[in-house]
Amino acid sequence: MTQIVNTIVHPDFLLQNATGRDLFHRYAENMPIFDYHCHLPAEEIYEDRKFANLTQIWLAGDHYKWRLMRANGVPEDYITGNASDYEKFMKWAETIPAALRNPIYHWTHLELKFPFGCKELLNPSTAEKIYRQTEEQLQQDDFSVRGLMRKFNVKTACTTDDPADSLEFHDKIKESGFEITVSMAFRPDKAMNFSDVAKINTYIDKLAAVQNVGIADYQTYCDVLYARHQYFHDHGCRLSDHGLEFPFPIQVYSEEHVAQVFTKARMGKELTTEEQTQIMANLLFKFACWNYEKGWVQQFHVGALRGVNKRKLAQIGADCGVDSIHDFSYARSMGLFLNRLEENGTLTKTVLYNLNPRDNAVLATMIGNFQDGKIAGKMQYGPAWWFLDNKDGMEQQMNILSAQGLLSRFIGMTTDSRSFLSYSRHDYFRRILCNLLGKDVESGEIPYDEELLKNMIEGICYNNAAQYFTMK
Amino acid sequence: MTQIVNTIVHPDFLLQNATGRDLFHRYAENMPIFDYHCHLPAEEIYEDRKFANLTQIWLAGDHYKWRLMRANGVPEDYITGNASDYEKFMKWAETIPAALRNPIYHWTHLELKFPFGCKELLNPSTAEKIYRQTEEQLQQDDFSVRGLMRKFNVKTACTTDDPADSLEFHDKIKESGFEITVSMAFRPDKAMNFSDVAKINTYIDKLAAVQNVGIADYQTYCDVLYARHQYFHDHGCRLSDHGLEFPFPIQVYSEEHVAQVFTKARMGKELTTEEQTQIMANLLFKFACWNYEKGWVQQFHVGALRGVNKRKLAQIGADCGVDSIHDFSYARSMGLFLNRLEENGTLTKTVLYNLNPRDNAVLATMIGNFQDGKIAGKMQYGPAWWFLDNKDGMEQQMNILSAQGLLSRFIGMTTDSRSFLSYSRHDYFRRILCNLLGKDVESGEIPYDEELLKNMIEGICYNNAAQYFTMK
Amino acid sequence: MTQIVNTIVHPDFLLQNATGRDLFHRYAENMPIFDYHCHLPAEEIYEDRKFANLTQIWLAGDHYKWRLMRANGVPEDYITGNASDYEKFMKWAETIPAALRNPIYHWTHLELKFPFGCKELLNPSTAEKIYRQTEEQLQQDDFSVRGLMRKFNVKTACTTDDPADSLEFHDKIKESGFEITVSMAFRPDKAMNFSDVAKINTYIDKLAAVQNVGIADYQTYCDVLYARHQYFHDHGCRLSDHGLEFPFPIQVYSEEHVAQVFTKARMGKELTTEEQTQIMANLLFKFACWNYEKGWVQQFHVGALRGVNKRKLAQIGADCGVDSIHDFSYARSMGLFLNRLEENGTLTKTVLYNLNPRDNAVLATMIGNFQDGKIAGKMQYGPAWWFLDNKDGMEQQMNILSAQGLLSRFIGMTTDSRSFLSYSRHDYFRRILCNLLGKDVESGEIPYDEELLKNMIEGICYNNAAQYFTMK
Repeated sequence: MTQIVNTIVHPDFLLQNATGRDLFHRYAENMPIFDYHCHLPAEEIYEDRKFANLTQIWLAGDHYKWRLMRANGVPEDYITGNASDYEKFMKWAETIPAALRNPIYHWTHLELKFPFGCKELLNPSTAEKIYRQTEEQLQQDDFSVRGLMRKFNVKTACTTDDPADSLEFHDKIKESGFEITVSMAFRPDKAMNFSDVAKINTYIDKLAAVQNVGIADYQTYCDVLYARHQYFHDHGCRLSDHGLEFPFPIQVYSEEHVAQVFTKARMGKELTTEEQTQIMANLLFKFACWNYEKGWVQQFHVGALRGVNKRKLAQIGADCGVDSIHDFSYARSMGLFLNRLEENGTLTKTVLYNLNPRDNAVLATMIGNFQDGKIAGKMQYGPAWWFLDNKDGMEQQMNILSAQGLLSRFIGMTTDSRSFLSYSRHDYFRRILCNLLGKDVESGEIPYDEELLKNMIEGICYNNAAQYFTMK
Repeated sequence: MTQIVNTIVHPDFLLQNATGRDLFHRYAENMPIFDYHCHLPAEEIYEDRKFANLTQIWLAGDHYKWRLMRANGVPEDYITGNASDYEKFMKWAETIPAALRNPIYHWTHLELKFPFGCKELLNPSTAEKIYRQTEEQLQQDDFSVRGLMRKFNVKTACTTDDPADSLEFHDKIKESGFEITVSMAFRPDKAMNFSDVAKINTYIDKLAAVQNVGIADYQTYCDVLYARHQYFHDHGCRLSDHGLEFPFPIQVYSEEHVAQVFTKARMGKELTTEEQTQIMANLLFKFACWNYEKGWVQQFHVGALRGVNKRKLAQIGADCGVDSIHDFSYARSMGLFLNRLEENGTLTKTVLYNLNPRDNAVLATMIGNFQDGKIAGKMQYGPAWWFLDNKDGMEQQMNILSAQGLLSRFIGMTTDSRSFLSYSRHDYFRRILCNLLGKDVESGEIPYDEELLKNMIEGICYNNAAQYFTMK
Repeated sequence: MTQIVNTIVHPDFLLQNATGRDLFHRYAENMPIFDYHCHLPAEEIYEDRKFANLTQIWLAGDHYKWRLMRANGVPEDYITGNASDYEKFMKWAETIPAALRNPIYHWTHLELKFPFGCKELLNPSTAEKIYRQTEEQLQQDDFSVRGLMRKFNVKTACTTDDPADSLEFHDKIKESGFEITVSMAFRPDKAMNFSDVAKINTYIDKLAAVQNVGIADYQTYCDVLYARHQYFHDHGCRLSDHGLEFPFPIQVYSEEHVAQVFTKARMGKELTTEEQTQIMANLLFKFACWNYEKGWVQQFHVGALRGVNKRKLAQIGADCGVDSIHDFSYARSMGLFLNRLEENGTLTKTVLYNLNPRDNAVLATMIGNFQDGKIAGKMQYGPAWWFLDNKDGMEQQMNILSAQGLLSRFIGMTTDSRSFLSYSRHDYFRRILCNLLGKDVESGEIPYDEELLKNMIEGICYNNAAQYFTMK
């Protein structure tokens, strides 16, 4: 006998005190969503795709779920392989009960509850019914991509795009008159990664083709990248994103030297690790300066260890669920990098994210070094992300930010989603936020000042991000 | 006036919610114990030793307790020195009240309660009575080593043994018809440690004598180690154990080169740190391949900083309580090591343990990279261990495992004990587990699904380990 | 409508259980303060300064507050610049409501409540009234520096002083017959920092002038430093303090070599990083030996990353709020350093502090390696400090210390203050301590043994420190 009365699907899920419940329902629940960082495809937004079934919308691209299935002994065929959608779903339904206490257990049922209105817990005995019901619903117009975005009350969504992207679908979305702002982030990680010469040359050639120039020397490469940065800007982009799987590069190399290294790479010669770093350092600093020049926000996502299982990676491709948390130190190098920008007068609004929770305190205190007394909350300690966007992770991020800075200036949750159902994570986050604040009020650690709490909650849910970001 | 009604000795100790109490008493309390990792001597099990008194069974080999006594200003003479058992016990009884909030405060009283039935708190005024009462009890047949193991409902216990061990007492235990399975783990740490040439040569000579061959070259050394691995296997061993006080070795060196380094060591010449690593890397990979070949589980215990106080170490010997927690980084090297095994097709079931809690997230996410979709829970994030097997440590380990993987597949608590009374740690662990789950049920974070919770709890307490390990 | 009945200014603030409330009011609240580490100026104690207003006593030297103001978009002019005291205060009053959940929000209101008796929450609408009221109070005799120290029931306070300090004001304080002991800590960080040759030479010249000798060679430099150590000792100093922004230096260099490096620096030649380390290593070991020789306590504060924003640093000077948390590893080097002292027979009473909370477990276990069985609590894991002296930080420090050692031997809170109002942090700390213990009692994790709890609490609040430190 499963008693679910009070579980997950309950309106007060995660709200364990009266004040928190009240705060959530009054101030948080109905705020719109400003999704400033996600991995959704603009093409599907343009096409207003309808998904055939839950497997397509849930499982097809979500490596979080794949990992759990593998841990539960589900063969790859039922995960990324050739099994039918229904079979895959049934394997997922077998895995879910084993995932008690995992955030995906929560997200799954939050997503079934809204938008599908399904209040049953997923398991092998409820799976078929849920699959069939949602299959029908997903064919309805208000369950298309745009329909879902409207249901979730999204106001702005930013995809993540490579400099070589044409942004064609962003243009088309705009032309289509879609009332939700769909912008993008400029993410030049590939352009800085010279670890595989064949790969980077292919990439450079692609970029050359997009921009219709030959790229033989470093100056031209930088010019092309700058042109792409401008191109993104002209298309409404106001945000860049940089993934660092290594400490910030801190040494400064002469343009001449970097140009020689670049030429070497273009000649197909492998670069030493040192040389790779030299180019990367030079480019990352340039990107940051361009970001400042154009008034963009820049994001640094630090600390993933990607592609650990090479066999799986070769078999399935990137983002297949074989990434984990890295543990290099980078406080000093991050400080030096930001300081160099500051001394150069080119430090723009910046969001710092860490993936290893052991670095929470480093980042939460680092931002304080560069708050400039001009823009409130200019430097942001980014929300709990990827492996950390679960209840403990979010609470820890908000607690350390509270202790070291101003929580009320926080830009709040990022979806970081790979599925159009993942907007439920905002609901999840808001419950956790209001639960924390309610607990603090009830224990007397913060005053019950309605106006103050209202502004703080609405700010963190939406208003702060809407003010901080200026994408179009 | 000491009020102990509700304290420690209470049946609901640590169970702070009704659901947790119910879950514990129904599903956890009476499960047997699968002790897959301990430091108990097989000889004492064979001899069915009776301990003279609490000092002998509690204090004689337990460096956890020694550390607390030293911190309380107790002279070494009363710890590892020549004071009488009674005097040592009285010093311990003085220390215990100062140890409020330390897990040993809990363990001590859990152990007095069961098996001794003593419900008083230990302090100088109760000490003599407790000492005398338990002294008598310890002479009874059901308080011998085997009697205690029966009382604690142990089904399987695995000692930790060096490749040079004869396993004589394991054989004798089997011959004696003891109904509890006593197996062992193969722990070749000494065989890989070439930091002290005199020491390793003595060790190699010992191994040579055991196997009755001369060991002049590396190939022979490997053959002998393989023969010992086989010997352990033939004696029922299905488990290896490796302690790493350094990052995983990742570079691959030619067999020829390693053979030369080995020869150098055999000639009595000190090796460089680099050379020591080369041998260690080569051997560790071989051990891992042999573990796969024989279908063993392998354990990696990472992150101790051993023998920090050299004077104390020289005075008393290894494991005297002068070890602490290390802080090197190893995410990348661990990933590369496991990946090399994976690409080689020789990655066996593996348990990863960290000693520094700052690395919890690294390990909890690392296992996800190598779950193979064949064996559910093939890769395990090991339970809180050594300095971490206290309430906070256990909760943190289970919380991060829950957030990053499948708690329900967890093999549960390890005793890691140096005393036959330490089985109480399973009771401790189970209370903490049920308290967590009960809290989650009552707050609506997991459903009250009796069957699901029953299976999960019984799994984590015993069944998962019993299925995962195959020792005989 | 702001309801503050139960908030902060409430007598039971942070005491969330009946036992905790009882313990606090009976045993903790009225204990005196032993302030063994602060940054207060002896001159102001001697002069018995009266502060003109809250801006002077609160904001003038407190970089914690400056950081929050900058994060809230307050221009530098209103922080460290030329704005009037009243204007600065109004900007602070605007910032405070944005600081909900920050410990400064708590401290601020604790300090308004005591000693000012003001129970309103600070915000722009209450600011003027509060400013005017406190302005008057601060002119009263019992609100002078000494008046405040008496109000807070301080028994001993230790300032932090450079070897070059004359300690003139300490002498004068003693002569003045002030009943509170004002001692000092010897902090030779500048004397060890050879990273900027011009700076260190200026420093050495200053030291030479103070001691009235020429310093041309290393031996003389050491002699002068030793003379200063003796001078401090003769003035009642029994405490040294060392800030480490790098791992402990572990290699041992010959005196001859270090002497050559010193001569090079005296000739105005820049030293390599390696050479800087050589001098630092040599000096730090000497200081530690002198500390032992004189029976002092030594403190190591490890892990700050100072002066990250160079522009701000140049503009305002050191300690201007552009420091954050570092993340280097140092378990092994700290162990080797302490062991070298131990083997040398010169390890004195030592307090280890970490600034990065990820290192909590390393330090809490490290002290156990060197407890000597003679002095109870000889090695101390220092209280949560700087960025960590908030509720979470204090709880984490006490929890890990409890789990790894003897909380009851803990020397308790340090003020680390830069304002004479910061003694409220002891009140804050004691509430958190009693709340933890009360919770443990009520959940049955520790017994309700009045005598034991009384001794433990009084010990941690005051008695342990009073016994541990011997300054005069």
